[in-house]
Amino acid sequence: MTTAVHRVHNFSSGPAVLPLGVLEEIQRDLVALPGVGMSILEISHRSKPFEAILQQAEADIRALAGIPSNYKVLFLQGGASLQFSMVPMNLLGTDATADYIDAGSWGEKAIKEAKKAGAVNVAASTKSENYARIPKQAELKLTPNAAYVHMTSNNTIEGTEYKELPAISDGVPLVSDTSSDMFSKPIDVKRHGLIYAGAQKNMGPAGVTVVIIRDDLVARSAERKATLPTMLSYAVHAENTSLYNTPPAFAVYTLGLVMKWLIAQGGLAAIAKVNERKAAKLYGEIDRTGFYRGTAQKDSRTLMNVTFRLATEDLEKAFIKESTAAGLDGLKGHRSVGGMRASIYNAFPEDGIDALVSFMKEFERTRG
Amino acid sequence: MTTAVHRVHNFSSGPAVLPLGVLEEIQRDLVALPGVGMSILEISHRSKPFEAILQQAEADIRALAGIPSNYKVLFLQGGASLQFSMVPMNLLGTDATADYIDAGSWGEKAIKEAKKAGAVNVAASTKSENYARIPKQAELKLTPNAAYVHMTSNNTIEGTEYKELPAISDGVPLVSDTSSDMFSKPIDVKRHGLIYAGAQKNMGPAGVTVVIIRDDLVARSAERKATLPTMLSYAVHAENTSLYNTPPAFAVYTLGLVMKWLIAQGGLAAIAKVNERKAAKLYGEIDRTGFYRGTAQKDSRTLMNVTFRLATEDLEKAFIKESTAAGLDGLKGHRSVGGMRASIYNAFPEDGIDALVSFMKEFERTRG
Repeated sequence: MTTAVHRVHNFSSGPAVLPLGVLEEIQRDLVALPGVGMSILEISHRSKPFEAILQQAEADIRALAGIPSNYKVLFLQGGASLQFSMVPMNLLGTDATADYIDAGSWGEKAIKEAKKAGAVNVAASTKSENYARIPKQAELKLTPNAAYVHMTSNNTIEGTEYKELPAISDGVPLVSDTSSDMFSKPIDVKRHGLIYAGAQKNMGPAGVTVVIIRDDLVARSAERKATLPTMLSYAVHAENTSLYNTPPAFAVYTLGLVMKWLIAQGGLAAIAKVNERKAAKLYGEIDRTGFYRGTAQKDSRTLMNVTFRLATEDLEKAFIKESTAAGLDGLKGHRSVGGMRASIYNAFPEDGIDALVSFMKEFERTRG
Repeated sequence: MTTAVHRVHNFSSGPAVLPLGVLEEIQRDLVALPGVGMSILEISHRSKPFEAILQQAEADIRALAGIPSNYKVLFLQGGASLQFSMVPMNLLGTDATADYIDAGSWGEKAIKEAKKAGAVNVAASTKSENYARIPKQAELKLTPNAAYVHMTSNNTIEGTEYKELPAISDGVPLVSDTSSDMFSKPIDVKRHGLIYAGAQKNMGPAGVTVVIIRDDLVARSAERKATLPTMLSYAVHAENTSLYNTPPAFAVYTLGLVMKWLIAQGGLAAIAKVNERKAAKLYGEIDRTGFYRGTAQKDSRTLMNVTFRLATEDLEKAFIKESTAAGLDGLKGHRSVGGMRASIYNAFPEDGIDALVSFMKEFERTRG
């Protein structure tokens, strides 16, 4: 089977680039899984081969992230956007308050949904600074005995990330939207009560959401089973090992292959080193002369989504047009930040970074 | 590219068999879509190529089913199971009653979810008859000015289907779960207010749900936007042409290819003729001698899920074991009905029917 097809460098913020070897394996087995005689697209979710695929994906996730046995791993649908509602509907009672750290556009959306479900305290916000940094620990105004504290570990749009987890009271669960940095580096699962992430950045294709939830929060969810829509109940999905309804089987399968690839790269500590090197090259070029300007404050810069601007919007338009023509796709920044954004997730190849740096140097030489 | 792989006959009730040509096209383009330079698994949902894929899928659905312009077509996640909650949350107010026709296990689940959202009247039920038939028109006890009437057009588990739509009051919207017969025959869209279907039977892989909703029901949904979880609002998804959040891009793409295949087969009237012929062969064999026994009443029998039993459970076990060994996979019936179920959706090849009929004759010859 030939794979000599033309592929561009894909800097998309998600769905995003996947490992070529994973794509080739999917391609090879697309018409019929070996030994099964039907496609992964056709196989019953109640069949032994699919159950094995799902269980292996979970086992690999557990091994990669070192997930303790008192956490469940769930494969759901609806992306982080549906989690914005599921978290408060399952975990925030009528007599409690949830703390939200407002550090980016996605966290702001999470707050909007949580307010529909119950009482919300915005513990800190950097919105007035266009979310250019993560709030400092001293800024957090936390509620005693909050139902939970919600954070967004990496801000895809604004290009910031937490360098260490916020310190919160023992007994208050930390809930983290890790959609854009999940498995890009080691994660201290036991400091969290619930972790969620849409797969379409570092973990797989769009269509599956990974939720890692501690057993006490599954129990809290179970108290609301009679009134919650069944499909929105963590307890139901946990009791049914993600097979209450038909799961997004192909997305789970692909995610499983990406997990195997990640293990083959050496796991989370190893991929973190690669991600640090890749990001350092790009930030180094941004900071080299002042021609480019990073939009995130330096101590909040993420390794995943490198945001930068030029002196004028005309220059930025030219940069995007010419980089696209040069096979560097998806560099246009989100409209709320402007400029450029290079999303460089786990599977983004280092030669693509080198190609962008070369392009940036040449663009500066001719326009600077 | 070789496709000389071993494929079995897949009688699974869903996820289910897909057209081989569709699988081969997905395989061919898996690493990079022609002219795009990246995989459908990697492409941004905000990109022009993906928007074209989504728009073409919608256009083909509209053409196939003859959908009037005052209906929206949405691509959502969560399957019929999430629609069980979305329908009442969007369409059933606090001062109204929804009528539900209880004609199968899935309809019963829909009722359970609706009761969490508001007042429900079960207009008729065949539960006491193990759902072996569709309720007759005269049995329906409909509520004047109901918020809507909910039905399940085809009962995947019990093997029954409506032969004609129930007659209900003008002005009361008919809501139909068509998950297991959508696009297996012509559908009179304009007699419905809302139609929904998980894709994984006749339309594509698991992971995408098609919702066809009339504009007045979108408007009814819009009145509840401030309080509904955003991801559960039909109005939000309609306003954003299914791009409010990251859609299940690969599932939409595959569904689009299946729609193209369906158009190439001659459309819904043509595929209905094939489905009638396929089902007639199988029911003919079931009725031939009395060795097999259909579980659905004859005037309610579906063309999609052919359910039948043998004289003893031991015989049924032998049938399932030996048919599986003969490359006829997925014939075990749902535990609530027992026996066998042959799901023979649009893409199920006629030679698979012939193979099953031959197997049935031989099984009867040796065991009868």
